[in-house]
Parts: sequence; structure tokens; C-alpha cells
Amino acid sequence: MSERPAASRPTVVRRVARDGKSRPRSETLATEEPLEIRLHAAGEERELTVTMRTPGNDFELATGFLYGESILTGKDDLIAVRYCQPQAEQQYNVVTVDLRGPVPETARLDRNFFTSSACGVCGKATLDQIEVTGVPDPGPGPRVSSETILALPERLRKGQKVFSKTGGVHAAGLFDAEGALECVREDVGRHNAMDKLVGWSFLQGRLPLSDRIILVSGRASFELVQKALRAGAGMLCAVSAPSTLAVDLAARFGMTLVGFLRDESFNIYSGEQRVLL
Amino acid sequence: MSERPAASRPTVVRRVARDGKSRPRSETLATEEPLEIRLHAAGEERELTVTMRTPGNDFELATGFLYGESILTGKDDLIAVRYCQPQAEQQYNVVTVDLRGPVPETARLDRNFFTSSACGVCGKATLDQIEVTGVPDPGPGPRVSSETILALPERLRKGQKVFSKTGGVHAAGLFDAEGALECVREDVGRHNAMDKLVGWSFLQGRLPLSDRIILVSGRASFELVQKALRAGAGMLCAVSAPSTLAVDLAARFGMTLVGFLRDESFNIYSGEQRVLL
Repeated sequence: MSERPAASRPTVVRRVARDGKSRPRSETLATEEPLEIRLHAAGEERELTVTMRTPGNDFELATGFLYGESILTGKDDLIAVRYCQPQAEQQYNVVTVDLRGPVPETARLDRNFFTSSACGVCGKATLDQIEVTGVPDPGPGPRVSSETILALPERLRKGQKVFSKTGGVHAAGLFDAEGALECVREDVGRHNAMDKLVGWSFLQGRLPLSDRIILVSGRASFELVQKALRAGAGMLCAVSAPSTLAVDLAARFGMTLVGFLRDESFNIYSGEQRVLL
Repeated sequence: MSERPAASRPTVVRRVARDGKSRPRSETLATEEPLEIRLHAAGEERELTVTMRTPGNDFELATGFLYGESILTGKDDLIAVRYCQPQAEQQYNVVTVDLRGPVPETARLDRNFFTSSACGVCGKATLDQIEVTGVPDPGPGPRVSSETILALPERLRKGQKVFSKTGGVHAAGLFDAEGALECVREDVGRHNAMDKLVGWSFLQGRLPLSDRIILVSGRASFELVQKALRAGAGMLCAVSAPSTLAVDLAARFGMTLVGFLRDESFNIYSGEQRVLL
């Protein structure tokens, strides 16, 4: 039986200081390993994608990814999520999702390259396939005070257990409108951290997240906005910058997008009405 | 004719301060747009992949990506790189690479997804596709003083023109063994910044980069190490943390990997012999 991979691993490095002096130093590395997501439905099984991820919450990652891709639309679609057989060499790096219906047409994409930890869109085969579909109406969404928004990063940091050891993983956090932290997920890939958070919400029956806030530890890309929209989030906050496409997409669907959320200030890029000033 | 997209775009945001006061503020967003990479060879044309990227140096991005995937192996393989026809709506978001030979087998990855349920074997076949091939012998590589290494981040920052405006893009820089900056490339995707840098090197006839240093502005993932290895770089430095797989891969091929490269110190994860202490 293969060993279950941990989220981090101790190592010894050589630390070099400005004066040229160096010494061995114990550090902890964030684990990065491939996860293959497979679909099993109506007697057929297929490989869907491989993503480079930090082990842990793999079933959430797989279900969140499939929800984001509209391959899963609700809990009724899902029979089970499982690792590969115990005798398989890559047992814990292969997750199969058993679907109730046939494999949907949307899952029949030619994905020529594996999804890297940097960009989950790369697997999409053509421009047409990056259109955003299956976005629930965000509704009025949460109304959140600026004090609450400013308090989120510190609350997220306290939940970033792998980051605090390694300095090497992204995080996505789910908060209610009063800023109470409900879930934190971490990963070397920021899209994976979001997929895990959405997968947790899916498996907990909490979707759509229309009265919730999602905070991501890095930048806000098109892809993260897309995943937040698909999960029905009313507000997405990012510690760093959003891209043009992230802003355009959030504005198009009426989601509140906050960026450069630091301890002292933040920027609102769309959906101002949900921020109580 | 469609308009050529810029690397950044001005916008007006609402900046909210700690005291709850807010005001409009002019900012600049990093552009994120899809780029479709197509192959044309022996009379056949096919879509290969779509990446979300910051426009600019698109031909370098396409060639660097193809070099990393071993679809391009040398300048003789390349006839031309071009945008789509002027009348096309996405003219500047589609790049076609004309290859001299047939489309290589490595680019023919549209697999038959419907396999038997022999999970372990099939899963392993897919995971094997992330194996690293086509890595040139790194040779002795550069010998670099710790002072030179410590000076690299500041030199890279001075070349990060899109970052200085937006705060929202990654960078990859190429340096000689004395720390002189030869090229900087920026992108919302860190793997794209690296592809652009490798593509520039490819088109300039500078590969392999065995006596060069590459510095990336963020973390070092498996994928970035893979791309640096394929380009033959003797040393890869990262401002932030490497992952387990990044360290393992660098060590396996004898590349020097430096991480947490800040103004005051850095860590050596593999290939210590190239750092003069």
C-alpha cells in the first residue's frame, strides 16, 4: 500500500546571510504532488485532468473542481468520491468521482496539457471553452462593513496552518457577513485552494454562497472570479491585485470584488453596494 | 481589425481607509487575456492550448511554451510565428506556430479518454505524462558569489515595468554569472513569464542557458523547475518558497535551486557547489 502524502515535509537547507556566512537550517517545504481526477459514470471511466496540488482535502478538491466546471451541479449527481485501489502505486494521487448520470458533454474536452499549479485554465482546449456558464443569480448578497472587511486577512492568516510552517502555499477562506471564519483551505495552487473551499461547501450542502465572503491570499485572476461566481459568492476579496478580466467578469455578474485588502485599506473594483461605508 | 491589447489598463476604484472614509482613486490593472496557441505543420493546423496571459511578447510565449513541451527542439524546427488573420475578432489572442516537420507525437495528446476500469495502470499512464524529458546536461554551470545572488532581486525589480504600475504580475529575469540582467519578462501567470523568457532565449539562439541564472519573482513550483531545466539553466532562484517536487526535481538533475531570496539572505536547496561562499 502506498503511503498517504503529507501536506508538508521537513528538510535541511543551507541558509546564506549577507555577510557570506552560511549554516544548515531546518525548514519545512509545502508538498506538491500530482492529483489525477477521474470520472466514473454509467459503466465508463475516464481520466479528466491532472492538477499539481498539496495533498489534503483531495475529495473536496475533486468535487469543487467538477462543480466549477459544471460537471457536478448538485449533490444528487454525486454517488461517491474515492481514492484508487490500495495496491495502486499512486493510490492517494488518483481520485475517482462516481457520477449518477452519464459523463456530461461538458466533460468531454480535449485537455492536452495537465493543469499546473499556476493556472487551471491552461487545460482548456479552445477560447470558446473559457466562457462562464452555470452562474447562479448572486441576489442582493451580504452587506458588509468596512471594519469587517479589514479584519478578514488577519483571521485568514490564523487559519493558514501549512503557510505558517512553509511560507509556500496559497489560501482561500470562507466568511459569513459578520466576518466569522467558516473554512480555510490551502494549496500550492491558488485555484486548488478555491476548489477545495468550494468542494467543502458543496459537500456540506452550503452552495450557493450568496450571503458569504470568500478571501484569497494572493491575486484575483479571471479563473478565481469564475470559480467564486459559479459557487454563487456575493463577495470575493483578494489580498493582492485583480486582473482586467477578473474585474470585468465580476462586474458583468454583479459580484463585489475587493482587492489589495491590507490591514489599513482596500480597493473596491465592483459591486460597491455590498460594502457599508 | 481588432485592437492590439495593452499589458495594462487604467481604471478608477474606490479606496477605503481604516477610518471608513473612501474616495475614488486612479489605478492600473494588469491585463489578463486568453492566448490560444495553434500548431501548423505539414498542411494540418490544430489548437494546442489556451493560456490566460498578459499581452506582450506573445511569440516568445508561444515558442517558449513549445520548447518547454519538447515540441520545438531547435530553431530548425521553426518556420514562423504569427497572429491570426487581421479580420479575426481575436486576432491578437491567437498565435500560430508554423513547424517545419510534422506535428510531433508529443503534441498528439488527444487521448481516448474512455478506458477500462484498470485504475492503477491507467492512472499511472497519465501521471507519467508529467515526467520530465529533453533536459540537456547542465554541465558545471555558473559559479556565482553570494553577493551577486543577493543583488538579483533589486535588479529584477527595476526591470518589472508592468509590476511597478499594477502590482499584479509575476516576473522572470535572466542574468549572467556576474549578475548582469539580460532579459525580464512579466505576466499574470508565472509560468507564462518563464515561457516568455525561454522563448526570448530560443529566438535569440541563446539556449541552453547553462552558464546563466534565472530569477522568478514568486515561488518555485515543479513546473517552473521543469521549464528552467528544459532550458538548460544552471541556477534557478526564487524570491519565495520552493515546493517539495521543485526541490526533488532540481536535485535529480543537478540544478542549483535557491529560494527565499531576499535582500538579507537566501536558502540553497540543491547544487551548493555553484554558490561561492
